[in-house]
This record gives sequence, C-alpha cells and structure tokens, in this order.
Amino acid sequence: MSVPSQTPAAAGPTGVWLVGARGSVATTTIAGCAALAAGLLPPTGLVTETPPFARSGLPALSSLVFGGHDTADGPLTKRAEQLAAQGVLPHWLPAAVHGELTAADSRVRPGGPQPGDDRGPEELITAFATDIREFVHSTGVARTVVVNVASTEPAPGSGEWPASSLYAAAALRVGCAYVNFTPSTGLRHPQLAAAARDSGLPYTGRDGKTGQTLLRSVLAPMFGQRALTVRAWSGTNLLGGGDGASLADPAAAAAKNAGKERVLVDNLGALPAGEVHIDDVPALGDWKTAWDHVAFDGFLGTRMVLQTIWQGCDSALAAPLVLDLARLLARAHEVGLTGPRPELGFYFKDPDGDSASLSEQYAALLAFAERLGESR
Amino acid sequence: MSVPSQTPAAAGPTGVWLVGARGSVATTTIAGCAALAAGLLPPTGLVTETPPFARSGLPALSSLVFGGHDTADGPLTKRAEQLAAQGVLPHWLPAAVHGELTAADSRVRPGGPQPGDDRGPEELITAFATDIREFVHSTGVARTVVVNVASTEPAPGSGEWPASSLYAAAALRVGCAYVNFTPSTGLRHPQLAAAARDSGLPYTGRDGKTGQTLLRSVLAPMFGQRALTVRAWSGTNLLGGGDGASLADPAAAAAKNAGKERVLVDNLGALPAGEVHIDDVPALGDWKTAWDHVAFDGFLGTRMVLQTIWQGCDSALAAPLVLDLARLLARAHEVGLTGPRPELGFYFKDPDGDSASLSEQYAALLAFAERLGESR
Amino acid sequence: MSVPSQTPAAAGPTGVWLVGARGSVATTTIAGCAALAAGLLPPTGLVTETPPFARSGLPALSSLVFGGHDTADGPLTKRAEQLAAQGVLPHWLPAAVHGELTAADSRVRPGGPQPGDDRGPEELITAFATDIREFVHSTGVARTVVVNVASTEPAPGSGEWPASSLYAAAALRVGCAYVNFTPSTGLRHPQLAAAARDSGLPYTGRDGKTGQTLLRSVLAPMFGQRALTVRAWSGTNLLGGGDGASLADPAAAAAKNAGKERVLVDNLGALPAGEVHIDDVPALGDWKTAWDHVAFDGFLGTRMVLQTIWQGCDSALAAPLVLDLARLLARAHEVGLTGPRPELGFYFKDPDGDSASLSEQYAALLAFAERLGESR
Amino acid sequence: MSVPSQTPAAAGPTGVWLVGARGSVATTTIAGCAALAAGLLPPTGLVTETPPFARSGLPALSSLVFGGHDTADGPLTKRAEQLAAQGVLPHWLPAAVHGELTAADSRVRPGGPQPGDDRGPEELITAFATDIREFVHSTGVARTVVVNVASTEPAPGSGEWPASSLYAAAALRVGCAYVNFTPSTGLRHPQLAAAARDSGLPYTGRDGKTGQTLLRSVLAPMFGQRALTVRAWSGTNLLGGGDGASLADPAAAAAKNAGKERVLVDNLGALPAGEVHIDDVPALGDWKTAWDHVAFDGFLGTRMVLQTIWQGCDSALAAPLVLDLARLLARAHEVGLTGPRPELGFYFKDPDGDSASLSEQYAALLAFAERLGESR
Repeated sequence: MSVPSQTPAAAGPTGVWLVGARGSVATTTIAGCAALAAGLLPPTGLVTETPPFARSGLPALSSLVFGGHDTADGPLTKRAEQLAAQGVLPHWLPAAVHGELTAADSRVRPGGPQPGDDRGPEELITAFATDIREFVHSTGVARTVVVNVASTEPAPGSGEWPASSLYAAAALRVGCAYVNFTPSTGLRHPQLAAAARDSGLPYTGRDGKTGQTLLRSVLAPMFGQRALTVRAWSGTNLLGGGDGASLADPAAAAAKNAGKERVLVDNLGALPAGEVHIDDVPALGDWKTAWDHVAFDGFLGTRMVLQTIWQGCDSALAAPLVLDLARLLARAHEVGLTGPRPELGFYFKDPDGDSASLSEQYAALLAFAERLGESR
Repeated sequence: MSVPSQTPAAAGPTGVWLVGARGSVATTTIAGCAALAAGLLPPTGLVTETPPFARSGLPALSSLVFGGHDTADGPLTKRAEQLAAQGVLPHWLPAAVHGELTAADSRVRPGGPQPGDDRGPEELITAFATDIREFVHSTGVARTVVVNVASTEPAPGSGEWPASSLYAAAALRVGCAYVNFTPSTGLRHPQLAAAARDSGLPYTGRDGKTGQTLLRSVLAPMFGQRALTVRAWSGTNLLGGGDGASLADPAAAAAKNAGKERVLVDNLGALPAGEVHIDDVPALGDWKTAWDHVAFDGFLGTRMVLQTIWQGCDSALAAPLVLDLARLLARAHEVGLTGPRPELGFYFKDPDGDSASLSEQYAALLAFAERLGESR
Repeated sequence: MSVPSQTPAAAGPTGVWLVGARGSVATTTIAGCAALAAGLLPPTGLVTETPPFARSGLPALSSLVFGGHDTADGPLTKRAEQLAAQGVLPHWLPAAVHGELTAADSRVRPGGPQPGDDRGPEELITAFATDIREFVHSTGVARTVVVNVASTEPAPGSGEWPASSLYAAAALRVGCAYVNFTPSTGLRHPQLAAAARDSGLPYTGRDGKTGQTLLRSVLAPMFGQRALTVRAWSGTNLLGGGDGASLADPAAAAAKNAGKERVLVDNLGALPAGEVHIDDVPALGDWKTAWDHVAFDGFLGTRMVLQTIWQGCDSALAAPLVLDLARLLARAHEVGLTGPRPELGFYFKDPDGDSASLSEQYAALLAFAERLGESR
Repeated sequence: MSVPSQTPAAAGPTGVWLVGARGSVATTTIAGCAALAAGLLPPTGLVTETPPFARSGLPALSSLVFGGHDTADGPLTKRAEQLAAQGVLPHWLPAAVHGELTAADSRVRPGGPQPGDDRGPEELITAFATDIREFVHSTGVARTVVVNVASTEPAPGSGEWPASSLYAAAALRVGCAYVNFTPSTGLRHPQLAAAARDSGLPYTGRDGKTGQTLLRSVLAPMFGQRALTVRAWSGTNLLGGGDGASLADPAAAAAKNAGKERVLVDNLGALPAGEVHIDDVPALGDWKTAWDHVAFDGFLGTRMVLQTIWQGCDSALAAPLVLDLARLLARAHEVGLTGPRPELGFYFKDPDGDSASLSEQYAALLAFAERLGESR
C-alpha cells in the first residue's frame, strides 16, 4: 500500500517549525519522522507516502529539520518517554531516535506571551520572527513551513491578538508557508488578512480532521446520497491529553465545535439537531473515544439509528497529517503556489474552500499531488 | 431535499412484477408506493425523487402497476397489518392503501416449485412466463420490470436450476427488464448467460446494499484514503424477519457473505481478517442490528478501533431501492439500453461492474440519470 | 414469571393522585393499569405482580382510582393517542381503555402556580389539599397515595417554595402517603421536615431509577467486588419528551445528576472522574438512549473499557414503577407503617436510606413485601 | 481499597502448579505475583487482597512458588517480553521480575501427550504425578494447588481421556488441591468421580468468568428483578491470543458456550433466544472485545435494547483470579475442607454448585473468607 519516497532530493533540507513543539503531537511528529526516515516502521497513516504522491516532488522525510516554539520546558526525549509509557509510541522508539529528538530540542525557543510578559504584539511578533530566521540560517534549510500544533485557544475578544496569530504573523514576516492544524485563529485574524494575501506564500488550515469529524465527513454524505433524513446527530468526545484539558474550557470548545458542525452543514444542507460534548478524562491520556448517535428517518418515516464509536490515539492520528501538510506546503511553496489552498480540505474540519465529502476532498488532493509533480 | 416527480407521464402504466410478492419487502414496496403517489408521506429514502432525477424521464410512482409470484397464500392487506403492528409501516397505512393492496394481490400468481411439484425447469419457466404475459396483457402496461425480492436461496449445486433462475428466464422470455435484489443466482446462471446477452434487455443486480454493507462501502474507502491499515473487520447481524430465518441456513448465508466481503476486497485491496455472522433473532421482527468492529493500525503501528451499530428496518431500507431500480430499469428499457448496468452499483453488494466506493457509485448513478434524460 | 394478583380486595378502592397527571408517565400509568386490570396485556415490568408479592396484601390493579393535578389542558385520551403514534403504547390501546382515561381525566384539577397566579404558598397548599380531599370524598377511596411525576424543577433558591413541595404539603395535610418519583424537592423541603415527621404517614423517594442509573447500580458493584479500579465513568443521555426539554435546563439537570452520582459514590466508595450529559433530542420523542463509558484498570494496571448503550422508552420504564410504588405505599399506610421507607431504595436514584447495590436493594424490597403480608 | 496482605506466614511456602505454565495466563500470573510481592504495583483485580480477606489466613503472595507442565518450549522470560510488547504487561516488568520468571521456568516440565507419544493414560498420569511430586520435594512447599490454565480442549468422546483429566488425576494422586480455570473436562470425568470424592482434597471449577459472562451474571439478575422479559440475548466475542485460536474450533467453543448459557439459564429461568460467537482475530492479540445485544420487553410490551461492549485483556482478567483461587484453595486444604467448593462460584461460568447472580456469589465468597479465618 505504500512506496518508498521517490522524490528527488530537493535542494537541501526543508524546515518544519512547530508552534507547540513540546506537545504530544509535535513529539510524535518528530519521533515518527525519524523512525520512518530510518526505515524502523512502515509509513502507516502517511498519505504522502502512498503511490499517487510518488512523483509530486515532495521533500523526503529524511530531509525534514524540526524546530519550534513552546512555552513549556523539559526535553523532548522525556516527553517521548511519557508517550511511550502510554502506548502512543512503541516503547523502544524514544531510545532509537534519541539523537533526532535531542537535535530538535536544541532548536526549540521559548514561546509566549507567558504570564507577566508585558511585551506588546509587535514586540512578540518580532521576537518570534527572529527565532525562526535564526533557525533558517543555522540549519540552512531551503524553506520552512510553520505548523501550529499548540493547544486550542479560547476565541479571542474583538481587537485582541491571540498567540496563534502572533506566530502566524511571524511566519509571514520570515516568508514561511503556514499550516494551522488547530481551531485557533492563526492567520484568520482580521489584521492579518492583507498581509496574508500579499505575502506570496501558500497557507492552509484549519483544525485537523482526525476522528469524529473524519467519520462524519464520510457518513453524512451517505445519508444525503440515499435520501435519508437525519433528525438528530449527537456526539460525545472523551479525551485526556492536553487537548482534553484545554477543550474543557467552553470558549476553546466553541471553536472546535464550529468546525464539527460545519462538516454536517456542508454535507447535509442544514445543521441537524443534536449537541457535541468534549469531556476531559485524564485517565484516557492521549487516547480519545468519540461516540456518535445519528437518529434518521427512512422510507415511510421509519425511525432508524446509526451509532459509531471511534477509539484512537490523538497524537498518532494527527502526526502523520502534520508531516503530510508540511511536505505538501513546502513543495507548493517551492513551485510558487500562493494563498489559501482549498485542495487540502481533506485534512481539515474548517478548510479554506468549500467543505465537501471526504471522497471529493480526496479527489481534490490527488489532483493537487499531480499538479505539484507537473511543476517540477 | 426532494421534489415532486416531474417526469412526463410515459405512454401508459409501467409494470413491476415482484418475485416474492407477499414478502415484507414487496408489501412495503407496494404500500409505500401507493402512499407516496397519494401524497400521504414524503418520499424519504427514494433517491429517484431527489432533484438530479427530475429530468430523467422516469415513470411516475402513480403509474406503477404491481403483480408478482409468491409461494405463500394470504392477502397483502393482512401482511401489511402485520408489518404495521411491528412498526414497519405507519399503523394507519394499511387501511389508507387497502384498495391498492387488494388490487396488487389479485395479480399475484402461485410461485414454485412447491414440494411435490414434479414439473421440470422448462415447464416452470413456461408457466411463469405465461403468468407475466397475462399480467402485461390484462393491465396494458407498456413494459414490465421483474424484480426478485424473494428469500435468499442456498447456492445451487452444479447443473441445478434454482428457482430464482427460473423466474429470471421467464422474464427474458417475456421481454422484461430484470433486477435481482437478492444474493440468489437469478440471471447469473451459466445456462442463462447467452440468453441474457442476446435478449436486448437491460438487467442488474445483485443483492441490495441496505445496511452493514452500505456502511462498509463508505467506511472502507476512508481507511484507504488515510493510509490506515485495517487489521481485522468483524461483524454480526441480528435480524428476525423471513430473511433472518433463511440466512440462518449457512448455505444461504454464504452467498450473502460473499457480497459483503467483495465490498471490503474492492475497497481495501485485500480481504482483511474477520468473520461475519448472520443470526436469526425472531424477537427483532423486521428490524435488524448490525455491529461492526474494525481493528486498524495508525501511525507508528498504534492500535485503534472503530465500531458501528446500525439499527434499521430491513423492509423500509429495501423498499425504496426496489422502487428506484424498477423506475430506472423501466426507463433504461424504454430508451433502448441493454445488457448489465454497472451504473447501478450504488444499489448492490455484488454489482455488475467493478465495485467501488459509494461516492464513486453515486457519481456513476448521477451520470446515468442524466443519460436517461438525454435519451428523451 | 408472573402470577395473577392474588391479593384479597382491600376494603374498597385505593386512590392514586398524580402530580403531572397529563404527562407521558401519568398517561402511560393510567392506560397501562387499565389494560392490565382488563387482562389485555401481561404485567411485564411490574415487580409487584411477581410471585414474591402475591401475599403482601397489595391493592389490586383493578381497585386503583386515578386523579391528579396538571397545569396542562387537553384530554388524556388525546395524550394517549400521541403516545401510541410514537410507539410508546400499543396503537390499539387508547381506544381499548378510552373509558378509563376519560374517567381519570374528569378527576384532574388545574395545578399551579401558573404565570400570573399571585397566590402565596399557603393559599396554594390549601387549594391543592381541597382538590385532593374532594377526590377522596367523591370516589370513596379508603386511602390515597400522592405521586409526583411532574417535570423536573430547577433547584429552588433558599426560602423558596417549589411547586413540588406545595403538592407534598397538601398530601400531608389530607393524610395521603407520598411518593416523589422525580428529582424535585417534594417533601425534602426544610419547612416540611417537621410536618413529615409528625404526619404518621409513609413516604418515599426520590427520582425513579429507570435507565442509566439502574444499570450503574448493578455494574458499579461488580467493579468493586472484582477489585477493579474505575478511573472514569462518563455518560450521555439523549431523550426527547418533556423530560428532555426540562432537563436541558442546567439547573434542573443538576438535581438529576446528583442522584446519578450518588449511585456511583455509594457503590464505588468515591466519585470517579467523568461527566454526565443530558441532551434534549426532540426527534427521539419518549425514547431515550444512554451511553456509558467506564475506563477501568485491571491487574498490573492494564487499561480496560466497558461501554453500555441503553435504548428504552422513558414512560414505559417509569409507569410500572409508579404502579408498584403506589400499591406498596398504600399497603404500608394501611398496615400503619410511617415515615421514610428506605426499603424502597430499589426504585430510586436518591433513596431515603443508604444507597446500595441493586441486589441488596432487591433483597430489602422482598423483605418489605413479606413484612407487608405479615401485617395482614 | 486494598490492604497489605496481613496473613501470618503459613508454615513455609505454598506451591502453585500451572497446567499450561508457559501460556499467557500463566506468564501473567507468575510475573504479576512477583511484581505484587515486591510492591512494584498495587494489587488491582486481586479480590483476596481486599479487606474482607485480611484475616482469612491465606498464604502471602510472596510465599507462592510456581511450577507446571507445558507442551511448549521457550523460556517464560521471552513469553513475558512478548506480552509486554502487546501492552499486557508493563514494558519494564519482564526485566524487573526476570529472576522469578527464570526460577519458575526451571520448574516447568514437558506436558503431554504430544503427537507421537504412545503412552497410555495410566503411564501419563504416573509421569505427571512424578513431576509434581518432585516439585513438592525440591521446593519444600507445605502443599500445592494444581491449576489448569491450558488452552481449551475439544469435548472428549465417550471413554476418551482428555489431557486435562490426566493432569487432574495426577493432582489427586499427589494430594494436591485442584482448580480448573478452563472449560475443559478436568476432574469432571466419569472415571475420576470416585477418586475425587474419596480424595479428601478441595477442588473447584469450571471456566473462569472474566468478561462477557461476568457482565451477564450482573445484568441478567437485573432483568429478572425488574420483571422485564428478555426476548433474545446475542453476543460476539473477538479475541486473538491462543484462546482465540483454540476456541475457533467449534468443538472447543461448545464447552465454553455451555458455561455462558448456564449463567443466563440460572439467572433468567430459561435460555433466551440468541447465539454466541467466538471469533479468532489474531490482530487483537491478548485483547478481547465482547459485544452483547439484549432485546427485552418492558411495560405494555414496549421493545427495548441493552448493548454492552467489553474491551479487556484476557490474561490480565484471568491472572488475578488464578492467584485468588490458588490462595483460597491452599487455605481450604490447610484447614481441612474437602470436595467441591460451591462457595467459589463467584469465579466461574460453570461452578460446582448452583449458579446465581454475581452479588449472591460475592456474598458466598465473603462468608467463605470468614470461615477460612475462623479455622485458624
């Protein structure tokens, strides 16, 4: 099902700058990339390692160089060991990729603003941009993709600068492609609209589609295609990692739920009744469970029900998509594509263009893969 | 989501000859068609009543005339009351469509062969063809579609003529389009291959996709598109109606399971581990429950699980598809299309052409709808 | 599994005064009692019709006379038809028990306070007591049990008189045994404590245990008995009837959730992590679905999960318990038992005495049944 | 919830002879006992470490000495590493208890009969007895409990000696208490009845209750107590370890299913409709998933459904029960109790005495714990 990466080595290494570089997703991304580059594990979950992407000119996994911002201390090696203890990473992996984790760790810079930090937005943007620029120079990467994988923020008040937008502004300033893998604001800040448009950079988002919403994006079209009437679509998510804690904040959950609802609206034509809950269950660690209950009407109004239970590991679902997006956007940057990339809706709850069924999004992704290859 | 049937009345009524005309599916089909034609209920579940089919020239629901074969006695009105008592039909419906049920009932002829019947295949085909021909003459229908909705047969031994193939042969002989909604052999009998090919008739099958397999045809592609490795796909079906009883026979279940497996093979590239059980649970009546358990590997080999529980009413899931297929094949016959119709794979577990994801099948169906309209 | 009611007819009829007499639970209770008394259906779900209660001296179902308060208009016969259309009652039942429903309906008096009603607590209690007294006189019942089956109230502010407590006060004043089947305050109002204690009446509550909590009261003990450590117990309830709407109010849900939590605390020794959601899903009507997810640790800390899905009809789960409780409390009153009845914890989320496992509660109920019989 | 083992050290060590000593259950038992004795992990799942057993005089975990028979080669240390890789044991545990595993491994003797072994029953019994006797002498244990944890056998033909009965005969001959944790025949062989009766030894079985049946033994009583009518109880088990493979043999599954059915019959009064499937799903390894679907009737015949999904680790569910049983039977032997021990029905699908609800079985176990203490 997968092929070795046949892309010709791009001119030198490619940078991946992770906002939230010491979180579970980032740690899994860095450790996993190293494991795959070394051939220690097959590239399960990595769409860009399947045959349709073999001629797209994507940077090789072995050419990716990681750095990033984080407000947390503590070495990536320790974080990886914690993830291994939970079963998120194979227990032997932290030791096997110790060198790569240590190297990436040395390129993580303090994020912000931390409590007590009284720098204003412009100062912070400048500081973040300086960090990224230094990374680019010191590593000699040909180009860098900034990827936001930090905890979800509460929706900002009017006129406020959420941290995610400060990092996004820094990315633009340094000339980096940008991916927002979270529901946070990022580049979609009113004061960044013009800069994004004029940047000549490709960017994409928002909010990676890794579990319940992924399922919804294949099930909702089925109801429509079969002319079945969805009466109510209800769901509960249990998750325990940092994401569980941050989404237990209703303000943060609101942004996430908007994306979940968008998938139903876009595929069913209207938002059905039903609520979505996100519960913080620390005992689950990085594992998440999503239960969905769909009450629908069939022929002659008969009442029917579909229920789904999705039990997955949050970081392991997200990390390969982060690698996919970094590679795709790096290549898009290389071949001169700019602006929002609706072709990457396959990866997002709240994509840049029209939302659609997963199969339509997959078709668009394959077309994009071909286009990237033709530009070679 | 649906529009009134805007098709111009075809020249006269269209016949629908149901093999298994007194079963749950047939009764629901006849009663439901009458209810919809009278505007008593919205056409939920009827794909051919959605906008893309408005200009396909399909026969109006009010123009369909039902007859058929059955080995069972007993009026359709009584069968409809039993279904209403189970909640399959609205409790007021049998009374509301009593006239249409009685009329259809008068056009049901004894099926066969019954125990003790010593007629050979040729005699039986002739008798069945005579019944259908008489129906055509007496009702004045412009054309007739024969639809097999009888209980699933055990797979026939080599050289045997299963009943489903006798009815299919009779359909060919009278010049009727043919739909096999069951896993039985029907037209796919070696001794009917040449006659089917030379008949100049359109036909399609096999085995309506109404629940577990419908779900599988949208979920299996998701795993492939996301490069997730399915390790095992297991399932259990509980159902109680006549279908439950006939599928409790392992020989009959074998045919059904072959179709279920085909969907996985065609969408995953190989058959994963895992079994499928079909249990007869009379207490469930016409309601069926399908539990599926999919063990899959994500990034770095993390073990994840998706489970689905589908609770539906078998006849209410099947009946609108029977109406869709009868209308589509009647129109195909009218515009001169012949042979197997792979464009109708959307409806089947074991379609005539390549199997595919439901979304690809839906796209093919929409293209077919357009083609039918252009032929007007 | 059940026996005909062998209780000797008590001296004359017994009154059942339902607070919320036109709701789904009350309607199902009245219609169901009539159906069972007439032998139209077996007494499924009625614990007091099982053999251990045959010699308890309970009033016969045929001797129960219903009346009550409700703020809603509209005849019980119409409400019964609505329930039958939803499948809560057999569709033929409303017609079969039309007489009994009409008779009960004639004994329903306006509840309160309605918006704009400026009567104070004392006036309302007096008015309610007058209604009940009139019912007692006009029907000639030997004694009456008042049962609160009204929608759940928000928890009252300090010093406030919630409606449920006004009705409970009226019950005391007229000398009626009292059952609180809801999470509302009822007799557990500080200003009623002395009156309840001195009343010489039996009473019981609170909050009928009909679904998720019933399950929890058998599953939680299992974890304890097997020394398995529950890490988190999470749950979501979807329900659509009036209860769904009233419990969508967080203040009303708070009372209900307290009872649910109590079962876990009492059986596990401490409240595990995990939340409980109650969603109003009107499409479900009177049907409710409860999903529970229990994350627990086994030997050597292995992580395991139990999930349960309960799909039941709220009124059909509650109504037989209402009949059980009315009969048991009428008999307790007859034989001179007074005060709170912890022996009835089998029926409640938040019982009068110590909570316990369902099996312990069942044993206590059987002992109570015997005691009632001995008093004969 | 648990207390340190306060039992006074019995006079010297106690032997535990495991039939199937290199299987997953045995390995987890030995490794887990060592981990608990060393205080490395809390005694989750070990009922005999809860307060009610503190004064029962049970042998301390640290005093248990393991040996056994197995037809497989290969060191226990390697088997433990395999289990750790699957997440059954903590990944650090095999190294931490390497010494104990190696010591136990040195006491494992070849089981039989292997293919090509032409020894008759008497010779085999003698050989097995010699092995056990040698273990007793070399370790100086005061007494030994033989526990069958080998793969389930097909039901033997009439007159045949299944291997499990040969081992049981050897246990009797050496004077060891005996536990049959599997559905195999063991001591319940017609030719062993007299010897067992006259042995003066305590013994117990059959078929440990670790998942689906454990749940059934708490849920089935609930339906009975609430007078709800179970219409059908269906279930599917997916499991992948050696047990999955051996139970895929219908003859072996038959014995297991008989136990599962017994729990329903004993608690519901009759066997409801519904089948049980056991599927071998190697991808699940030692993890098992059990789905149960209970269709039941409530008040007025309303149709309701309960579904449960149990996801557990087979060996981690079984191992603490094995330790419990070995300790309880060793103590029973010490205080002179003989014959079958119906008090241990808590642990078995097919216990020696009447089956019952789990709560009744737990009460019987607590009474037994007290009795063992009084005999001190």
